Amino acid sequence: MIKTSHIAGASMRSAAPLQDWTASETAAAVNSRTVSCESVVRACLDHIAEREAQVMAWEYLNPDQVIAQARALDAAGVSGALAGVPFGIKDIIDTSDMPTQMGSPIYKGHRPKGDAACVALSRKAGGILLGKTVTTEFANRHPGKTHNPFDFARTPGGSSSGSAAAVGAHMVPLAIGTQTTASTIRPASFCGTFGYRPTHGDLRCVGVKEASGTLDTLGLFARSVEDIALYRDVLTGSAPVPITEPPAPLRVGFCRTHLWSQLEPHTQSLIEDAAQGLARAGCKVEDVALPADFERVEDAHRWVSSFEFSRNFTWEIENHWDEISETLRNNRLKDGLACSFDHYREARNLLAHCRGLLDPVFEKYDVLINAPATGEAPVGLNQTGNASVCVIWTSMHVPAMTLPLFKGPNHLPIGLQLIARRNNDRGLFSAARRIWQTLS
Amino acid sequence: MIKTSHIAGASMRSAAPLQDWTASETAAAVNSRTVSCESVVRACLDHIAEREAQVMAWEYLNPDQVIAQARALDAAGVSGALAGVPFGIKDIIDTSDMPTQMGSPIYKGHRPKGDAACVALSRKAGGILLGKTVTTEFANRHPGKTHNPFDFARTPGGSSSGSAAAVGAHMVPLAIGTQTTASTIRPASFCGTFGYRPTHGDLRCVGVKEASGTLDTLGLFARSVEDIALYRDVLTGSAPVPITEPPAPLRVGFCRTHLWSQLEPHTQSLIEDAAQGLARAGCKVEDVALPADFERVEDAHRWVSSFEFSRNFTWEIENHWDEISETLRNNRLKDGLACSFDHYREARNLLAHCRGLLDPVFEKYDVLINAPATGEAPVGLNQTGNASVCVIWTSMHVPAMTLPLFKGPNHLPIGLQLIARRNNDRGLFSAARRIWQTLS
Repeated sequence: MIKTSHIAGASMRSAAPLQDWTASETAAAVNSRTVSCESVVRACLDHIAEREAQVMAWEYLNPDQVIAQARALDAAGVSGALAGVPFGIKDIIDTSDMPTQMGSPIYKGHRPKGDAACVALSRKAGGILLGKTVTTEFANRHPGKTHNPFDFARTPGGSSSGSAAAVGAHMVPLAIGTQTTASTIRPASFCGTFGYRPTHGDLRCVGVKEASGTLDTLGLFARSVEDIALYRDVLTGSAPVPITEPPAPLRVGFCRTHLWSQLEPHTQSLIEDAAQGLARAGCKVEDVALPADFERVEDAHRWVSSFEFSRNFTWEIENHWDEISETLRNNRLKDGLACSFDHYREARNLLAHCRGLLDPVFEKYDVLINAPATGEAPVGLNQTGNASVCVIWTSMHVPAMTLPLFKGPNHLPIGLQLIARRNNDRGLFSAARRIWQTLS
Repeated sequence: MIKTSHIAGASMRSAAPLQDWTASETAAAVNSRTVSCESVVRACLDHIAEREAQVMAWEYLNPDQVIAQARALDAAGVSGALAGVPFGIKDIIDTSDMPTQMGSPIYKGHRPKGDAACVALSRKAGGILLGKTVTTEFANRHPGKTHNPFDFARTPGGSSSGSAAAVGAHMVPLAIGTQTTASTIRPASFCGTFGYRPTHGDLRCVGVKEASGTLDTLGLFARSVEDIALYRDVLTGSAPVPITEPPAPLRVGFCRTHLWSQLEPHTQSLIEDAAQGLARAGCKVEDVALPADFERVEDAHRWVSSFEFSRNFTWEIENHWDEISETLRNNRLKDGLACSFDHYREARNLLAHCRGLLDPVFEKYDVLINAPATGEAPVGLNQTGNASVCVIWTSMHVPAMTLPLFKGPNHLPIGLQLIARRNNDRGLFSAARRIWQTLS
């Protein structure tokens, strides 16, 4: 294979190969015409060709199609916040020019009419859709083919398996996933990427297969805090603005929650060390305990997500039951179909009640910290790992980010999860950049 | 044309022709095998054949397909809450076996992969999808071809124009629409039907083209309160339960709002007379004034809906701008594309704030009453009427229903709108049935 990442005539912003550049670096170089879109996508495609046989991050990827699109953008003199930036999207997200197969045989070969809003906004900003990344079946638990890029015997996490692995393996600088439980934050932690789950409702989900509307959001994977902030601005249809400085001192709440005992001891130590490290660096760090009602959130999340999922998929259930996995039938669908509307509403009301209880916590803290997962990615590809530590934050509609700061006992990635107040995504970015600078 | 509604051998529950039966009556007769599905759909199809040339409620209707489905259900011995009940759905709602054209040339001939959740749930309950009803372009303002069934020179209202007209013209006993502003309650009032807008989030919108997720709900059209309650249970995937008796005395808040002056004087008198009639019948009726913050809801609704709409339709905007109407381009899209994320979020926060202010109002009242529209359907088919009186209630996520109680100065329908507390849809039904019995 011919390596094309070091192209003659291009003045490089960085000594690193093009596939290792962040989205911000690539866009700056393409906008200033020092790097071509074609050279960027060829670097990524070559790197994918080297690694895909082991990682299997992609459900659909057509190099000829991608190169043709890159050449067209070069010819048109593309500009924009994502000019020339390759991105991948989870295969539950509609694309007009690629199949959207949902990790399910029911949707084999399915071709939607149009692009999902998030795809169209990315393309409008000059981004180049590289391909569709592997998802678990309908973004639920039944795994796809993807392996953890850091240990092929381990899960990449789910449900946004391919998006996390593709960014973690430096196949692409940006990818979109979704999160209903832990489907962005957990795989980002397992695959050593930055992962971001926005305030619920901020980023449009049109053209994304809904699992549970009360909980679903997009999720973003990147290799820097700045790229996350940039991509969020693109996806709100806004001109990018720089990350601001956080308050000084940064007020950090260390929020173990009642689920702390589920963490592996090594992970507990890493998060505790991080809290101490932030305190030594001048942050105001305090332990935070949540009200007792939060101990009921995990159960309520289960009923809300299962009820909504089981109604959302009525067409598939009624017409394609035999093509649904046993995993999905015997867990999410069994729960959901057995759940009454009254029980569902009670659970939904509990989550709304707890959201109201969480708001005042953020009067004392700029950001909360916790673990994004219970430990390193577990061995085995037949599951996606424990999701419980993300459930509270997902259910609270708060923005969250995981920073790829640590290595576990097997030298595999573990992140630090940061959580901010609803609607304070930019405050989350300010804190995340400061904490990254402090601890990395 | 051969009238088939009075079929030999069927023991009729009602002396009325089959197309005039309510859904509840039809389902009972089909479940007890006293009426066949085929006879029901033939009655509706014959009635449509008589009236469609003037009303133009249907975007797609294939009698052969419908009769074949009815025969298949008869052969299978269908049973269920909607057994044999014909229903229509707004043409922004996906169907696996009929086109879904969104009122837009962009989607001409578009065939989705599967049924929307609401369609699949209706069919699971034994309902027979008769066809797709006319929608304004993408459920926005640019009208379709439908005429008001009570005066062909007048609008049926919008955006669920065809669904309202089809039920109002007795073409079908049930229809589904949507509501982002006034798109169910207003056309129901104009077309003389019961119209219901559920608590936001209760009825799944998977497979329904989103206008503005913060505001969108399904909307139901029927010819009785009981049918509305029945259909809601079907769409939550629940076994139907009877409507309960309301509290005695029923506490009714007469809530004119600051928009009262927009109502035509005749409509003001009708609503005031209704309030007095309820008081005479033993209800506890009081005037209710909303806090001043509610005067900002209409403006906030405009920015929330426009911002979300303009991002949701990025694919259409970027790839099919020339096929979008001037109405949509110069209003909703122009507003939305000019609206910053911060302005949008501020507007969204105001709506959330006002929801919190409205909850305590319902500690004193079981139901609020107001008008569903400013008056009778206006003359002209190039617009869908004034939507403003619905904006507050839509934005508050509360359940609402309009009852076809009145006639205006031109002997055209005008409804009475009832509003209940979020999550109290069953309380709304109890009050609605009592108020209907009292005033009709």
